[in-house]
Amino acid sequence: MAPHPTPEPSPSELGPMVAPVRVVRVGGEARSADDALAVEEPLEIRLAHHQDGRLVERSLSITMRTPGHDLELAVGFLVGEGLLTRRDQLVGLRPCGPATGRGGTRNVVRIELAPDAEVPLKKLERHFYTTSSCGVCGKSSLEALAIGDRPSLPHDAPRVTPAVIHALPERLREAQAVFEHTGGLHAAALFDAKGELRLLREDVGRHNAVDKLIGAMWLEGRLPLSDSILLVSGRASFELVQKALVAGIPVMAAVGAPSSLAVDLAAEAGMTLCGFVRQQRFNVYAGDSRLDLQETTP
Amino acid sequence: MAPHPTPEPSPSELGPMVAPVRVVRVGGEARSADDALAVEEPLEIRLAHHQDGRLVERSLSITMRTPGHDLELAVGFLVGEGLLTRRDQLVGLRPCGPATGRGGTRNVVRIELAPDAEVPLKKLERHFYTTSSCGVCGKSSLEALAIGDRPSLPHDAPRVTPAVIHALPERLREAQAVFEHTGGLHAAALFDAKGELRLLREDVGRHNAVDKLIGAMWLEGRLPLSDSILLVSGRASFELVQKALVAGIPVMAAVGAPSSLAVDLAAEAGMTLCGFVRQQRFNVYAGDSRLDLQETTP
Repeated sequence: MAPHPTPEPSPSELGPMVAPVRVVRVGGEARSADDALAVEEPLEIRLAHHQDGRLVERSLSITMRTPGHDLELAVGFLVGEGLLTRRDQLVGLRPCGPATGRGGTRNVVRIELAPDAEVPLKKLERHFYTTSSCGVCGKSSLEALAIGDRPSLPHDAPRVTPAVIHALPERLREAQAVFEHTGGLHAAALFDAKGELRLLREDVGRHNAVDKLIGAMWLEGRLPLSDSILLVSGRASFELVQKALVAGIPVMAAVGAPSSLAVDLAAEAGMTLCGFVRQQRFNVYAGDSRLDLQETTP
Repeated sequence: MAPHPTPEPSPSELGPMVAPVRVVRVGGEARSADDALAVEEPLEIRLAHHQDGRLVERSLSITMRTPGHDLELAVGFLVGEGLLTRRDQLVGLRPCGPATGRGGTRNVVRIELAPDAEVPLKKLERHFYTTSSCGVCGKSSLEALAIGDRPSLPHDAPRVTPAVIHALPERLREAQAVFEHTGGLHAAALFDAKGELRLLREDVGRHNAVDKLIGAMWLEGRLPLSDSILLVSGRASFELVQKALVAGIPVMAAVGAPSSLAVDLAAEAGMTLCGFVRQQRFNVYAGDSRLDLQETTP
């Protein structure tokens, strides 16, 4: 292979997110070469909370994630599930367990809630193993999947120009340049209404990248993110739109396609949802009143 | 927009997998247009099994999926979790619940197991809400995530040429042509060792596309798939490699990148794993002895 035109960081400089690998490259003649992989490891999120006067600890979720920003990921997950709203509900947050992951990562995060924090056990069971209730029967899909409280979005704000939306993917790529060579990381980034990057997070799981982003902002007390634009590097699913809505994000853009239920939810909630944001084009699927569009013919 | 060069099927011809949507296209001048979305709806998988002499029904999982091949999806999910092995364990399989989905889809599948089918309740709880055990503590990631029984893979078989691997993505694209215009569906396809397509399934969730494929083959009594190649349209995660291994698939190819844990698991199990299969090139991450490589320089 020809030398790479710009120096790439070696995997060891990239910390726990990237792992070296020896591959056989095929195409032309086959040969062995060094390459890098996006690291994927399980993260267990354990929740300690008070129930009937005693502290109970539960395993809430095991998610496959790229190590790094694990505390933010765990917090963002709980915020997205509607389990964490006020900052004073959180009294403990730490990695735990032995260093069994690749490169000595610890793969457990423990979150402890304040004694007076209410834990809606029904909500916890929403995605999990239950013995009785049918989660879907007789309800519309949006009802069946609804998270309890969402902040309402500002009406027709922020105002965003198409030029700002067009510029987002390039700004994301610049910011994630060091990880680009694995080709295996999803990215999620928050921008202000002028298109200035606020924060970027990456992960093998796109929902994790969004959880890390929202967890980081929640820990800084910056929710609801009513003046922000969220860009995701892949597709816009129902789940990602719901996470954005719980964080109060009024404008979401995706490099890939949205799903039907993502569009339904965005429309119902008054969110602006753009898809296929690439090569100076995009589609608006919901909430076009926040966009300064010069010409629209029906 | 210029008329499309080839006639596209209208969304109504595509059944429940694609939904029409009205969008504003931005880029040049903004204008309103018709487009199509990949449908995403929740599917609840309910398991009826015998416990202490009585029939118990449980909600096992709610997954966001594209409607179509729901029974195969539910079966493939259980097979992947190690809950279904022999055909005679399955005595009931049907959609249920009211038609609440978009276009009247029913969003629940009920699976009933035979009275003598053993249900390892521990396994059921692996991904779900548990009160005591830590799933990750003290174990390596591969241990923590292991599914019980996997068929062993044939040693150095099937033999596959690079030309066969190179041709897979184009054959996938031809077969999924009608859905391509939504841009929102992942695909998974099974090929024989000569690269002939056996079966294709599509879904907004890549794990669902693989579950549909494996469920369909399981229902036909064709597992283990020891002479098959699996191609996935996106990235290769740990979860997808594990599903393929439970089905006995010895060769897996991905258009995108693999993760570190996907490579670790493939190498441990003796699976051949190829990534970045595109434009007459690919990388081999594990199990290159099944490939007829003419020249390999270290």
